[in-house]
Amino acid sequence: MERSHEFSIKAKDVSLQELRDRLAEFARVRGWEQYHSPRNLLLALVGEVGELSEIFQWKGEVARGLPNWSSDDKEHLEEELSDVLLYLIQLADVCGLDLGQAALTKIIKNARKYPVVTQTNASSPAYN
Amino acid sequence: MERSHEFSIKAKDVSLQELRDRLAEFARVRGWEQYHSPRNLLLALVGEVGELSEIFQWKGEVARGLPNWSSDDKEHLEEELSDVLLYLIQLADVCGLDLGQAALTKIIKNARKYPVVTQTNASSPAYN
Amino acid sequence: MERSHEFSIKAKDVSLQELRDRLAEFARVRGWEQYHSPRNLLLALVGEVGELSEIFQWKGEVARGLPNWSSDDKEHLEEELSDVLLYLIQLADVCGLDLGQAALTKIIKNARKYPVVTQTNASSPAYN
Amino acid sequence: MERSHEFSIKAKDVSLQELRDRLAEFARVRGWEQYHSPRNLLLALVGEVGELSEIFQWKGEVARGLPNWSSDDKEHLEEELSDVLLYLIQLADVCGLDLGQAALTKIIKNARKYPVVTQTNASSPAYN
Repeated sequence: MERSHEFSIKAKDVSLQELRDRLAEFARVRGWEQYHSPRNLLLALVGEVGELSEIFQWKGEVARGLPNWSSDDKEHLEEELSDVLLYLIQLADVCGLDLGQAALTKIIKNARKYPVVTQTNASSPAYN
Repeated sequence: MERSHEFSIKAKDVSLQELRDRLAEFARVRGWEQYHSPRNLLLALVGEVGELSEIFQWKGEVARGLPNWSSDDKEHLEEELSDVLLYLIQLADVCGLDLGQAALTKIIKNARKYPVVTQTNASSPAYN
Repeated sequence: MERSHEFSIKAKDVSLQELRDRLAEFARVRGWEQYHSPRNLLLALVGEVGELSEIFQWKGEVARGLPNWSSDDKEHLEEELSDVLLYLIQLADVCGLDLGQAALTKIIKNARKYPVVTQTNASSPAYN
Repeated sequence: MERSHEFSIKAKDVSLQELRDRLAEFARVRGWEQYHSPRNLLLALVGEVGELSEIFQWKGEVARGLPNWSSDDKEHLEEELSDVLLYLIQLADVCGLDLGQAALTKIIKNARKYPVVTQTNASSPAYN
């Protein structure tokens, strides 16, 4: 059965390459590769970031852990976060870039740019 | 040496949980957790999506594989794609959600919503 | 009749201040001012930019003037462009800023930053 | 002198058509019209929305009127708000749409969709 097969991959081990391969196959068997140009995928990503923002738009400040959110609201949020991720992975893929490696490299670069300060007065984040 | 340690993790195996753990540690040791509220991270994500869009903004249609892009341009793109990913992972994390599992679940849901059509005339993508 | 009254304002004269005043009144009489904090409005704006992007996402390059778009598609686009504008105006307003004056000032600043080159080889735009 | 000419237009009367005409002339005399395709302008708009978001990203909730913001910070915000507006106007223009009229029409449509409730319990805003 398909479902049990899908879930046999343990969530904690989900890798970017795995998601990339599944998405590439998903598009291929549906004949959708023709629509997956970099700028089409980028605009689709922007569309999903918009849907993600809509979830938070009238809420004022939201606390970590989302106290008082219903499970339906959390599930909706999971879906929108996923949609952003899935388009991001596909965008990197059609550009021929390795997103996982790029992300590790960026973390290392950020670590050098923002060395750990041992004082109590840490500066505000600015690792853009 | 730190660098060789970092690169000992093979790029192809980069998992979302691994990145999440590294980012959480990165913020913790810098005292930045206090800034990482869901809406702060969401706006930081939107900022990075803006930087990603700027790369593509005056280019007209861009072909898959980015022919004729310099390696500098590709590296810049890798950085912006990474920045979006890193904030997305952190946003999911402070919300207490498992992004990898959510993404797998969304792919399965999409597969059911858009069954593979065997005809030659595939419909346009609309899996939002 | 309300409609004819509304349309008695000639479109060509629509000013930012006029729209701002109508929107402020709109929110006031509905008791919505309480929701119109700067960051709420900003996220609502991002949400509308997402909906605007969705219109263009699978289309590949689109020509000026939107040839071959149906009038329904154009009307949908007008609505999304308007939604972005209306939130932008409200965001400026709750921040206490004069968007019209700011826009004029920015155009003048851009004109100085990018002087007109009389050669035939104009550079690419970069007025960010 | 150019500057005094520019400022002879009173800020309170700044209309969308005026800004549209100035921007069209700005692009024309610089030979930039060739870059102003709808999707190029849309991505430029997304880039500016990103810069706007960056201003607010680490601030937590921000109060109406921006108390405690420096005049430099306010000026920076005015510039980013303007950049979003200027690209939005140009996007509508190259699409052949009348943004001012569209915005008025949308306000009227919203007024019908969300009639004023006389009760004390106003609903939350949702005029998307």
